[in-house]
Amino acid sequence: MNIGVFDSGFGGLTVLRALLDRLPGANYFYLGDTARLPYGAKSQATVARYAVSSAHFLVEQQKADYLVIACNTASALALDAIRDAVAAPVLGVIETGANAAQASTKTGDVLVMATAATVESHAYSAACHERGLRAIEKAAPLLVPLVEEGWVDHPVTEEVLRIYLSELLEESNRASIQPDTLVLGCTHYPLLRANIERALPESIRVIDSAEATAAQVAAALCLPDAPCKAEGKSHTRRFYATDSVSKFRNLGTRFLGQRIEEVELIDLGG
Amino acid sequence: MNIGVFDSGFGGLTVLRALLDRLPGANYFYLGDTARLPYGAKSQATVARYAVSSAHFLVEQQKADYLVIACNTASALALDAIRDAVAAPVLGVIETGANAAQASTKTGDVLVMATAATVESHAYSAACHERGLRAIEKAAPLLVPLVEEGWVDHPVTEEVLRIYLSELLEESNRASIQPDTLVLGCTHYPLLRANIERALPESIRVIDSAEATAAQVAAALCLPDAPCKAEGKSHTRRFYATDSVSKFRNLGTRFLGQRIEEVELIDLGG
Repeated sequence: MNIGVFDSGFGGLTVLRALLDRLPGANYFYLGDTARLPYGAKSQATVARYAVSSAHFLVEQQKADYLVIACNTASALALDAIRDAVAAPVLGVIETGANAAQASTKTGDVLVMATAATVESHAYSAACHERGLRAIEKAAPLLVPLVEEGWVDHPVTEEVLRIYLSELLEESNRASIQPDTLVLGCTHYPLLRANIERALPESIRVIDSAEATAAQVAAALCLPDAPCKAEGKSHTRRFYATDSVSKFRNLGTRFLGQRIEEVELIDLGG
Repeated sequence: MNIGVFDSGFGGLTVLRALLDRLPGANYFYLGDTARLPYGAKSQATVARYAVSSAHFLVEQQKADYLVIACNTASALALDAIRDAVAAPVLGVIETGANAAQASTKTGDVLVMATAATVESHAYSAACHERGLRAIEKAAPLLVPLVEEGWVDHPVTEEVLRIYLSELLEESNRASIQPDTLVLGCTHYPLLRANIERALPESIRVIDSAEATAAQVAAALCLPDAPCKAEGKSHTRRFYATDSVSKFRNLGTRFLGQRIEEVELIDLGG
């Protein structure tokens, strides 16, 4: 079983990390479209063009049997385009995040923090609405650069989180909803999970869509009464990037939580 | 006289703004490669590929007689590649910034704040060294996202600037140099000029490379004893972007300081 994992950059490695814990027997092919990142502030047409070319690479050239779109922005803006473009089943982190929110919430009211493009698409709101939940979304564009600067346990990051979260809670007060769940709608945010939990009231549970995604991939591939499809003898892990492989190795190690030995540079024509 | 101005995004509009003040009689063609921005954390090979395709568009398709590379990262990493690729004269903001620093400094010691890629290239150090100056460079990757978040007069931005500038001044103390000039080595930074001046000792003068660039373009095109080449009857201003034209219009207006009416979407194949 070859599982392709796609992200605009390094953040999707938090999803791969969760997948490696759940399904260590599969082969993994990870592509970070680092030459064209970040997707979070770009238009739907541009994100769809980039994501489709990346999905083609994983499914057609690397023979992925199953494709995980670990990038929230690409899941929000381009999931249909990707499903139209490739033959493999495709799972996006928006639907897995919304499923996990549905399983978590008792009040039916959910908060979401994400990139500007994800929030503007209202993909989380729509996915929550389909599941009978109400959602309030908040763009938090400074969190990705703060994580990439390495300022995870830093007073500036605490202050930025305090501002974003208090604006989000004020908005939910104005809407008279009772949120008990917050979805981390960007794969960089799990690195700030402890900081976010500290800044929130205890009544609000944080959902990490990386973990939720891994659980749902496992549920899809390992049915209770059959041998798990994600078992195999070889355990390939291959990493591809469209920009600097040394940067990918260095920064990626932080997101994956283990050393990345080899990264291959590919050209998607961008 | 057709002047092409190229940037990865909106920041170069601060250079265009300074050019419009100095040389209002020229025609301007501005390209923001917004689908592939930011360049500031990408590799030399990728930045050069993007910048050369953008330069081709301005010189070959828009008939620019003179090309200004308003993007510090592209000037630092790709100026030679651009000069090899197009027939028009090409001016980059690193050399104009270094010229302005040379004109400003009395001690011969200069500080530079720029993106990670510009700093890693040491293009400012090299350009300063050629002019007999010593330079200490500092990457300030959070400043662009803070400007784009609109947090210009904001306590978080003041704190981030305090941290970056105190690290820069500590480094110059350790090197026992006496800086009297700081170059803003990124076209987003002029929007933070007042904040930066407040955070610095009064003995240090801030150089805005946008203004320096406009002055040097004027000096090249308007010789003292000849009619200025940058005068004309028509005053064309055209704007091109590779991603969302509405975002370009909205955000661009802040950088240009005047309303942008029309932006054309182009595809450079990325």
